Amino acid sequence: MSSTMLGPLFSAVEMRNIFSDLAGVQGMLDFEAALARAEAKTGVIPQDAADVIASQCRAELFDLELLADAAAGAGITAIPLVKALTRLVAEQDANAARYVHWGATSQDAMDTGLVLQLRNAIDNIDGGLAKLADALAALAAKHKMTALAGRTWMQQAVPVTLGLKAAGWLSAIGRHCERMRELRPRVLVLQFGGAAGTLASLGTQGLEVAAALAEELQLDLPDMPWHAQRDRVAEAATVVGLLTGSLGKMARDISLLMQTEVAETFEPSGENRGGSSTMPHKRNPVSCAIALAAATRIPGLVSTMLAAMVQEHERGLGGWHAEWETLPEIFTLASGALDHMTRVAAGLEVDAASMRRNLDITQGLILAEAVTMALANHLGKEAAHQLVEAACRDAVREKKHLRDVLAADQRVSKHLPKADLDRLFDPAQYTGLAAKLVERALAQHKGRGHG
Amino acid sequence: MSSTMLGPLFSAVEMRNIFSDLAGVQGMLDFEAALARAEAKTGVIPQDAADVIASQCRAELFDLELLADAAAGAGITAIPLVKALTRLVAEQDANAARYVHWGATSQDAMDTGLVLQLRNAIDNIDGGLAKLADALAALAAKHKMTALAGRTWMQQAVPVTLGLKAAGWLSAIGRHCERMRELRPRVLVLQFGGAAGTLASLGTQGLEVAAALAEELQLDLPDMPWHAQRDRVAEAATVVGLLTGSLGKMARDISLLMQTEVAETFEPSGENRGGSSTMPHKRNPVSCAIALAAATRIPGLVSTMLAAMVQEHERGLGGWHAEWETLPEIFTLASGALDHMTRVAAGLEVDAASMRRNLDITQGLILAEAVTMALANHLGKEAAHQLVEAACRDAVREKKHLRDVLAADQRVSKHLPKADLDRLFDPAQYTGLAAKLVERALAQHKGRGHG
Amino acid sequence: MSSTMLGPLFSAVEMRNIFSDLAGVQGMLDFEAALARAEAKTGVIPQDAADVIASQCRAELFDLELLADAAAGAGITAIPLVKALTRLVAEQDANAARYVHWGATSQDAMDTGLVLQLRNAIDNIDGGLAKLADALAALAAKHKMTALAGRTWMQQAVPVTLGLKAAGWLSAIGRHCERMRELRPRVLVLQFGGAAGTLASLGTQGLEVAAALAEELQLDLPDMPWHAQRDRVAEAATVVGLLTGSLGKMARDISLLMQTEVAETFEPSGENRGGSSTMPHKRNPVSCAIALAAATRIPGLVSTMLAAMVQEHERGLGGWHAEWETLPEIFTLASGALDHMTRVAAGLEVDAASMRRNLDITQGLILAEAVTMALANHLGKEAAHQLVEAACRDAVREKKHLRDVLAADQRVSKHLPKADLDRLFDPAQYTGLAAKLVERALAQHKGRGHG
Amino acid sequence: MSSTMLGPLFSAVEMRNIFSDLAGVQGMLDFEAALARAEAKTGVIPQDAADVIASQCRAELFDLELLADAAAGAGITAIPLVKALTRLVAEQDANAARYVHWGATSQDAMDTGLVLQLRNAIDNIDGGLAKLADALAALAAKHKMTALAGRTWMQQAVPVTLGLKAAGWLSAIGRHCERMRELRPRVLVLQFGGAAGTLASLGTQGLEVAAALAEELQLDLPDMPWHAQRDRVAEAATVVGLLTGSLGKMARDISLLMQTEVAETFEPSGENRGGSSTMPHKRNPVSCAIALAAATRIPGLVSTMLAAMVQEHERGLGGWHAEWETLPEIFTLASGALDHMTRVAAGLEVDAASMRRNLDITQGLILAEAVTMALANHLGKEAAHQLVEAACRDAVREKKHLRDVLAADQRVSKHLPKADLDRLFDPAQYTGLAAKLVERALAQHKGRGHG
Repeated sequence: MSSTMLGPLFSAVEMRNIFSDLAGVQGMLDFEAALARAEAKTGVIPQDAADVIASQCRAELFDLELLADAAAGAGITAIPLVKALTRLVAEQDANAARYVHWGATSQDAMDTGLVLQLRNAIDNIDGGLAKLADALAALAAKHKMTALAGRTWMQQAVPVTLGLKAAGWLSAIGRHCERMRELRPRVLVLQFGGAAGTLASLGTQGLEVAAALAEELQLDLPDMPWHAQRDRVAEAATVVGLLTGSLGKMARDISLLMQTEVAETFEPSGENRGGSSTMPHKRNPVSCAIALAAATRIPGLVSTMLAAMVQEHERGLGGWHAEWETLPEIFTLASGALDHMTRVAAGLEVDAASMRRNLDITQGLILAEAVTMALANHLGKEAAHQLVEAACRDAVREKKHLRDVLAADQRVSKHLPKADLDRLFDPAQYTGLAAKLVERALAQHKGRGHG
Repeated sequence: MSSTMLGPLFSAVEMRNIFSDLAGVQGMLDFEAALARAEAKTGVIPQDAADVIASQCRAELFDLELLADAAAGAGITAIPLVKALTRLVAEQDANAARYVHWGATSQDAMDTGLVLQLRNAIDNIDGGLAKLADALAALAAKHKMTALAGRTWMQQAVPVTLGLKAAGWLSAIGRHCERMRELRPRVLVLQFGGAAGTLASLGTQGLEVAAALAEELQLDLPDMPWHAQRDRVAEAATVVGLLTGSLGKMARDISLLMQTEVAETFEPSGENRGGSSTMPHKRNPVSCAIALAAATRIPGLVSTMLAAMVQEHERGLGGWHAEWETLPEIFTLASGALDHMTRVAAGLEVDAASMRRNLDITQGLILAEAVTMALANHLGKEAAHQLVEAACRDAVREKKHLRDVLAADQRVSKHLPKADLDRLFDPAQYTGLAAKLVERALAQHKGRGHG
Repeated sequence: MSSTMLGPLFSAVEMRNIFSDLAGVQGMLDFEAALARAEAKTGVIPQDAADVIASQCRAELFDLELLADAAAGAGITAIPLVKALTRLVAEQDANAARYVHWGATSQDAMDTGLVLQLRNAIDNIDGGLAKLADALAALAAKHKMTALAGRTWMQQAVPVTLGLKAAGWLSAIGRHCERMRELRPRVLVLQFGGAAGTLASLGTQGLEVAAALAEELQLDLPDMPWHAQRDRVAEAATVVGLLTGSLGKMARDISLLMQTEVAETFEPSGENRGGSSTMPHKRNPVSCAIALAAATRIPGLVSTMLAAMVQEHERGLGGWHAEWETLPEIFTLASGALDHMTRVAAGLEVDAASMRRNLDITQGLILAEAVTMALANHLGKEAAHQLVEAACRDAVREKKHLRDVLAADQRVSKHLPKADLDRLFDPAQYTGLAAKLVERALAQHKGRGHG
Repeated sequence: MSSTMLGPLFSAVEMRNIFSDLAGVQGMLDFEAALARAEAKTGVIPQDAADVIASQCRAELFDLELLADAAAGAGITAIPLVKALTRLVAEQDANAARYVHWGATSQDAMDTGLVLQLRNAIDNIDGGLAKLADALAALAAKHKMTALAGRTWMQQAVPVTLGLKAAGWLSAIGRHCERMRELRPRVLVLQFGGAAGTLASLGTQGLEVAAALAEELQLDLPDMPWHAQRDRVAEAATVVGLLTGSLGKMARDISLLMQTEVAETFEPSGENRGGSSTMPHKRNPVSCAIALAAATRIPGLVSTMLAAMVQEHERGLGGWHAEWETLPEIFTLASGALDHMTRVAAGLEVDAASMRRNLDITQGLILAEAVTMALANHLGKEAAHQLVEAACRDAVREKKHLRDVLAADQRVSKHLPKADLDRLFDPAQYTGLAAKLVERALAQHKGRGHG
């Protein structure tokens, strides 16, 4: 229902294909074909009927527009699809048509079809995460020692390194890889329960057919059907939501660093990327915008998936319907953000000189902590804090460098001679554990089998 | 990006057309054509250039797929569109091409184009609300006195009438009509500010052009451009969100009334509507499901619009992008819910006998209040409450009708002889102001010029 | 349930008082007292009973902790409150106790009590909006001509003025005033319907009592009770949500301007405000943080209010409960944000020199549009755009001022001699309509009776 | 900021205590005490200073109201708390006061304090889940064969058993146990990074101190500080959100079963629970209401946590603040829902006779599938479906039992003699795999070490 025109902007083409209408129909048909095969294998239906059914389970044989119109009346896509499939099969073999969709309910086809799409989608996200993690690891390694201002509350605080920032992004991505791995066994399972989850219409063979069907589709067989228990699919939404939050954080950082007045890092430039229609000089952070848009949209979509969990009895009314476009939207938006930020991470332009220049803006104030801690060894933290705070005020008022104000204060100079002060005011000397933390994050990255 | 296959199910065709990609492009082109005309009228550009430009502002002249790909790089659709328009115009008249998009910025075209779409969308919703209100008014009038159980906390409470329920739905729709009317002057305004909202590139003629442009498009001229002040469009989202909440409430009521065990009202049936693939007897409340799905999805989408309001400086990064698919999605989902519930209201099947039967389920308990109030006149509220509460317990334990338990209690019979008790236990006698309240709601409906 | 410790940080004390537990109880008691008076006036209950009841309707007479525990069992606060009130009244006059809460239902007391709180809350917000609007109007007037960089996509675009930014914030606040005014007649209405909305227990006198009760409380009498039609209260949430979005936008702008590298405006400083525990020089934008936190939290809370609208039949199960803490939370958070941003607007520190310095960062690129438009008059827009775009690239590559690159280009110099170029590169000369738009916004502000 | 009066209704007392203001302050003080000890152990500060500091880290020594007021100015609670602690320590030992909070930043104390609270909260939820799972397992076992109508789209579909319903609830709870277990290593980690995450002020001893500190607190040491990487805490929100969705689903089911017209299961009754002020016979599903309210509120709160992840640079502005009340609110609401539904599961009253009666409402239609499948073996699925569909229509029109209509149809009777038909129309005979699926779910439950 949303714009296909904005598809290429907001999402990655592979994910759009995974969740295309055609792929959605094919997912249901894959279920129907596998069901027929499984039922033939277990002797529930004749093998030749299964063969005919399976032969017709190809999405390109169906008229999607007709299905869409029929779905509008049925309230569901699977019903008209099963009818259309039955007609197609009947054209080949009237007898085989009797066995289409045997023992299953619409939601079995729709949910299992969705799970098959989700398997592709999760693979796709995993691949994207691996690429992004590698790019971030390279960035972190390269800039392990590249000093720039650490900023808290959007104010310069103390120096950090670009490598440390990249390691922070990387570390989060690593945790998202774990989460994606952990959700697979809960999400990638068969849905098969018949009308109300009892498989009653298959008599005593229900479990046997279910097991064969799961094997056909290479999905796990869950303890029981989960028609109205939606935590499995909702969890996929939350994990992708968490991931997008981290991408948004990375995009926020880079767009802030890319501001005209900061100018420390830049999205890779390219043909037709980020130009402005009226301001020829501008280089807009288009990829960051896309990632930030995704991080703005997905929280609301995740809340929809959670709200939709309250489904009635053996099949929900409205809650289930609310998932149908929402979950694909979450994945496609996330894929776009992931794709964009991977390109940014891989091609990030870094202006270390600009970083160094910005570290000087505060005329030494950014290193007030370094001096405070050094003085605290002599005066105690509270006294040192007060002394430096006063010196900072003086420096600001008199527009002097903090080093010079402090050098003129005997309480300071008796403990910290000029050479010590000069060293203390070199930002590159005050990045603490930055390099070590980068190494720890890189080690974890390698431990995940990446790099 | 979402499914076009689910479009016919979840939305109304008119609204899908209003927010189609083609209509979106045409909206921007309508801005460009009107801009050229307005600038010709005010002498900013030559009239013949304006004529050529206007002649090319037809969406069908553009390749939407190419535009989509270019937008993916530019981060925005207007930039490639303006480029394509300039090329088209240049093919007609190289000189005219110089004046395409003169003085405007991409967001001017995109926002004004959106406002033009919103004008159609609001008209469409208004039309839908009027139809729904009329259907509900007819229902309320017809069933002013049709008694059924009022239910609170999902338990039978005291009798109400179906007319009163319908009047409640109607009353809310009436308020939504007011809200839609009130937001028009805030939403249906021109966006025109140039690169950063100053129209600097038009020199001293900016306001004059703006006024002419607003007149061309029959939009109000706001006090100033609103590129990064998004309360106008976000308000449209909230009002449509409120409306959908009321539709969801109506759908919840009807789906509850339609339960097999309640069976008091039914969605109109129809060819291929609500059938089940495995249970031939079922009649699913498909329209209610659609409205409930919309009411589940739209709150999250509205929260996105609100979250997206925090846009940076003179044009937002990401927040603005987050609106592009979200606002149309809100309108299209609401249109589907409105359409479905209008059909339900107009064709609702009512089973008054079933209502009467359900009123008897509690064996008189549902009229305990009637008796309590009658007794309270004699015994005081607290004592009456306690007496009836005890009688209720007895009735339940002994599986008797409450009337019979009370009739056997002298404290009751001395104040309420049998005839009085019988009257008190006729649910139709205990609908209080229901009919009067229906009339008040109908009067308000007429007062709005409906009916 | 949330932290009272964070109350003073996130909210304004007046609003906390309006929505305190005590005020909530008093709201319900005000309903009960007015009900008794109205019923005495209409002859439904004895006047002296009403007097006794009214005399006990003082929140300080009740043990809130006991009520809280009883509410946990009843699922609702009004039931134990009415019981406690009845006991209190009975201690005074056993007969009067019979008439407590006569004909009403719990939700009548709770909703009307809430509406009384909302009346105070809306008054409070209105007062806050007026103060903020005045502060912004003064800021806009004072800095009508103070040039700073306009920024789009978080990149410098073309110059604007601080007055124009302030006028943009002001203009949105003005619209929020309108919205607050428009919602009053829909929100500030009586709730009175009895057990299921029919007032059946009052016999034929229901409407008469309702009218007298509305008059007692100086509330409008709605067409009918609205127990399960929640658009009235949900609308209040959405309007406050929109307002907070605008406050968040203002906070985002100011926090961006306050960055160490930008340093153009600052929150007013004060004792103990925004200091850092480890970095003595920092001045954190605390007020902006609070407003941004509110703008981050309220969208989700508004979505809860919308989702909760789907309430069952004559009284909802869960949906109604979901409102109880959510709506007060929305108002208290908004009040905090409003309070903080009003203080910021009133005391904003402006560094015009810093603004001027930042306008020079791009070495003239920020005025590329000015030159482009000037050249377009001679060369056409497309050609001018291309020429300036190339010059921009040269300027960047050669680290020259754009003016100097252009001055060296004959195609430019033949149309624009040096004096013209110099004037074109004065940012203060290129603020277009900024001053006029400020005046328009100020005129609207005055038209609202402010200023 | 929210109501303490509603606390006992919406949340469990243990969770309220875990997230009380006092516990929040104690969490930060536990960090400060452990920091002092760890720094003494690693030789960074003197042991006797550490002893004095640790001795003062008791929340009851602090004036929470004063802290709250100071936090309002500082924008943060940790700053005034550290100041107050320093004063307390100084009163004991001026020298020791120099070492308070040595090398740490406010967020280190706040986040680690939060993690300590989360450890208790997660333990608490785990305990609650175990109890609920046991109750559901007992319910599933007991009612493995108790037949009731399966309902899809809120319409009777085919029979299921109450045990199967309970097994579905149980199965979801089992998955939530897994999720809670999996998130522990990501959430229960130390936060310790100093001003901007580099621990620069501790010189070369940063990692050594960090490791000792983690050991003191029995928390894992993460690869690096995570001040602005919020996926850890946001994940806790999402998992609790998923859990609450499942509780809401269970509450929806039970409240539907508890409707007056359905009357199949009931919340356990009790003193003062669920009574109505005006309808003495009602038994309101109070616990379901609370769980449904939580399931309505938490999705919006989770979306806030996700939206808040987009935090700037080394410490966020507003996003971090947005978490402070939101995450505790999610846990306390979930605890209330969990507590309520555990009580419901443990004491659920079941009316099997009512279930049996409801299974007869459709006069056999609910077993149409059973007959269809039986006939399909003879006629093929399509033909059988059509035949039964027609018979259903006849049954409805003629108000007959479906069995009788079918018995009169020779196409049926020739394949299914009366005895077969009678058996087919016994709902208890058509619960398919229900019992087996219950056993599978119970086996999984035991496999988790429960039961």
